[in-house]
Amino acid sequence: MPQLSTRITSLNEGGSDGWEVFYRARAMVAAGRPVTQLTIGEHDIGTDPTILDAMHAAALAGHTGYAMVPGTTALREAIAARVTARTGIDTARENVVVTAGGQAGLFATHMAVCAPGDTALYIDPYYATYPGTIRGASARAVAIETDAADGFLPDPDRIDRIARETGARSLLLNTPNNPTGAIYPPETLQAIARVAQARDLWVISDEVYDTQVWEGTHLSPRALPGMAERTLVIGSMSKSHAMTGSRVGWIVGPRSAVAALIDLSTATTYGVAGFIQDAAAFALAQGEAPEQAVAEPFRRRRARVLDALARQDLVRAIPSQGAMYLMLDIRATGLSGRDFAESLLDAHGIAVMPGESFGRSAAGHVRVALTVEDSRLVEAVNTLCGFAARRAEAA
Amino acid sequence: MPQLSTRITSLNEGGSDGWEVFYRARAMVAAGRPVTQLTIGEHDIGTDPTILDAMHAAALAGHTGYAMVPGTTALREAIAARVTARTGIDTARENVVVTAGGQAGLFATHMAVCAPGDTALYIDPYYATYPGTIRGASARAVAIETDAADGFLPDPDRIDRIARETGARSLLLNTPNNPTGAIYPPETLQAIARVAQARDLWVISDEVYDTQVWEGTHLSPRALPGMAERTLVIGSMSKSHAMTGSRVGWIVGPRSAVAALIDLSTATTYGVAGFIQDAAAFALAQGEAPEQAVAEPFRRRRARVLDALARQDLVRAIPSQGAMYLMLDIRATGLSGRDFAESLLDAHGIAVMPGESFGRSAAGHVRVALTVEDSRLVEAVNTLCGFAARRAEAA
Repeated sequence: MPQLSTRITSLNEGGSDGWEVFYRARAMVAAGRPVTQLTIGEHDIGTDPTILDAMHAAALAGHTGYAMVPGTTALREAIAARVTARTGIDTARENVVVTAGGQAGLFATHMAVCAPGDTALYIDPYYATYPGTIRGASARAVAIETDAADGFLPDPDRIDRIARETGARSLLLNTPNNPTGAIYPPETLQAIARVAQARDLWVISDEVYDTQVWEGTHLSPRALPGMAERTLVIGSMSKSHAMTGSRVGWIVGPRSAVAALIDLSTATTYGVAGFIQDAAAFALAQGEAPEQAVAEPFRRRRARVLDALARQDLVRAIPSQGAMYLMLDIRATGLSGRDFAESLLDAHGIAVMPGESFGRSAAGHVRVALTVEDSRLVEAVNTLCGFAARRAEAA
Repeated sequence: MPQLSTRITSLNEGGSDGWEVFYRARAMVAAGRPVTQLTIGEHDIGTDPTILDAMHAAALAGHTGYAMVPGTTALREAIAARVTARTGIDTARENVVVTAGGQAGLFATHMAVCAPGDTALYIDPYYATYPGTIRGASARAVAIETDAADGFLPDPDRIDRIARETGARSLLLNTPNNPTGAIYPPETLQAIARVAQARDLWVISDEVYDTQVWEGTHLSPRALPGMAERTLVIGSMSKSHAMTGSRVGWIVGPRSAVAALIDLSTATTYGVAGFIQDAAAFALAQGEAPEQAVAEPFRRRRARVLDALARQDLVRAIPSQGAMYLMLDIRATGLSGRDFAESLLDAHGIAVMPGESFGRSAAGHVRVALTVEDSRLVEAVNTLCGFAARRAEAA
C-alpha cells in the first residue's frame, strides 16, 4: 500500500485519553449488561415526530434531488432571522451557509482561515473532536489551558501571549461550553475580542449549546463591536432540537467568507439533503417553545443533581451555567479522572467521561451527561458520591 | 476581515468555463420561461417512495441520534456484499466507510493520500468538481488531457510521463465516465494499473455510474492484480437509486486506509444520518431490479438519441458505453462548445453543457444529459441538429 498523508495518520496523535471507558460501556450495553450511560451528549429523546413528518412530506413531495449547495433559501433565511433575533446583529441569507452538521462547520471554518501549517488555537478542556479537526485541516492545533479554580474560563492574557508566540491565525471558542458547562461572561469575551483584533485572529465560535442556558446570558462574540468581520459562528439543530442524527448545522460569517465556504462545500459534501433542510426550516418556524421543551429536562436534572451534590462535600461541581453536562472535581479521592471512571464503571455500572478525555486542564475531573431520566440520574450521582467517599477513605 | 486561506479562495481558479449556460437556464426556468434542461445529471424521477417510507420508519423508530461514524453495520455490510458480488474481490465491512455522498468520498480520499502541495492527477474531460476538490484538499491538481479522436480514453504513456515529471501521489479515474460516457476497456485499465504500480500511485476510482452500462462491461480497477492495496473506490446511491439528494455514498479500500478515513470522517462530518443509512440499506437489499429500473430510461433514451443523430452527419456522438449523458462533437459548426450552447439556449430554449465546462479536451463539444422524457429529448436533439446545420451553413 502506498503511504497515507501524515495529516490523516496523525489525526489522533497526542489526543484525548480515556475514551476506553466510553467504548467499554458501549460494549457492555451491547452485551446486555445494565449500564447507566452518562457519557456523550445524546438526548434521551428522539427527534420530535412532527419534524420527522415534515421531513417525510418534503421527500414525498419530490425534494429528493440535489439541493442548492449553500442551503435552501428557506432554511438560510430562517437561520439568518434566528441569529438576528438572538444576537441583535443584522444577518442576511448571504451570511449563512448550511453544513452537514456542526462538526462539518468546525472543519470547514478551519479549512477556510488556516493555510496548511498555520496555528489554530483552542481552549482546554475541549470538545473531543477539536484537535483532530484542526489537524485534519492541516493546521497546527495549540491548546490554551485553563484552570479549574477559574471555572475553566480562559485567560485573555494567556491567549494573547500564545497567539503572539505562535503567530496563530484563529481561536476556537465554545460557549456555552462542553465539557465544563461554563458560559463565558461578557468581560471575558470583550477581553478576548480585543486580543483577536490586536493579533488579527479569526474567532471560530461554536455556539451549538446556545439554547441550553441555565443561568446568566449567552453572548455571541460576533455581537461585540468590530467582531462580526472576524467571527465565524457554528450553529446546529443537534442540541437545540434533538436532531443530532440529522447532521444539519450552519456557519454564519462575513459574506465573502461565506461565499468561499460555499465553494468549499461544493468540494467537500455538495450540500445537505433537501428534505432534512426542509425539516430544519419547519422546526425553526415553530419558534422557541420546542427548543425550550428539549432543553427543559436538562435544566431540571441539573438542579436535582446539584441538590444531591450539596448533601456531601467531597465531590464538587464546577460552577456551570449551561449545556447538558456537569463537570465534577473528584481530586479529593486521590484518583485520576480516568481511574475514577474505570473503577466506577466496574463497581457500579455507571459510565462517566474522564476529564482527561477533554484535555489536560480537566484532569482529576469527570463529566456527567444529564441524559438519563431524573430519578435514575440522581441515584447514579448518589452512588458516584458514595463511591468517591469510600475511595477517599481508602486512600 | 482577516485573510482567508489561499486554498479556499483559489478553489475555482483556472477552473471550468461555461457554467454560465447552466445558471442562465436555471434563472430562465425560475422566471417561468420554457427551457428544456439537458444540463446536469439529475434524474427526472424522485427517490422511490418505498425507500422514503423506509427512511421515515427508521426515523420514527428512533434512529435519529448519532449513528456510528464509520457507517451502520448493516449498510457497511450491504455495500461490502455488493462490491464483492460485482467485482469478485473479497470485501469486508472493514474495507468500507460510509460518506455524506460521493463528493465527500472524492474529497476525503484526496485528503487521505495527498499531503499539502502533493500532486494529484485527474483525466480531462472531468466531472466539474474534480480540480476544486483536489485544491480543497490542499493538493496540486494536474490534468491529463485526452483526445476526442480516441473516444477520450486516457493514454497510459502520457499518465506515466506526467506522473514521473510531477512526482504525483494519486490518479483519479472515472469509469463509466462523466461527461464522455466512455467505459475504460480492460486493456486501458491494465496499462494504467501498471503505471500506478511503477509510480507508486494511489488510484482513486470514481465508480458512481457503475449501474449505467449500456455496452460492454464495467471493470473496477480495484479488481486488477495488485490493485486492491492501492485503490480507493468511490460509490454512491445517487445515480444508481435516484437518491442524489440524500447525500449518501462510500469509500472502499484497504483496511488501514479505511481506518484513517474513519478518523477523518469524525473530524469532517461526524458520520451520516442513521435514517438515511437505513434507507440506503433497504434500497440495496432490494437487489438489482430497482437499479435497473432507474437506469432503464437512460438506456432507452440514449438509443433514441443515437437513432436521431444517425439521420444527419454534422453533429457526431462520441462513441459511449455508459452514464446518463452523450457528448456531441459540434466542431463542424465552427463554434466553440460554449458559443454553441449559448446560442442554442437563446434560439430554442434548449440548455446543454459546453464541453469546455469539463476541461480543455472537450472543447468544441456539448454534453447532453438524458434527463427529460423521451419524445421531448428527441425533439430537442433534432432541433439541436437543425440549429447546428444552419450554423454550419452560415459559417
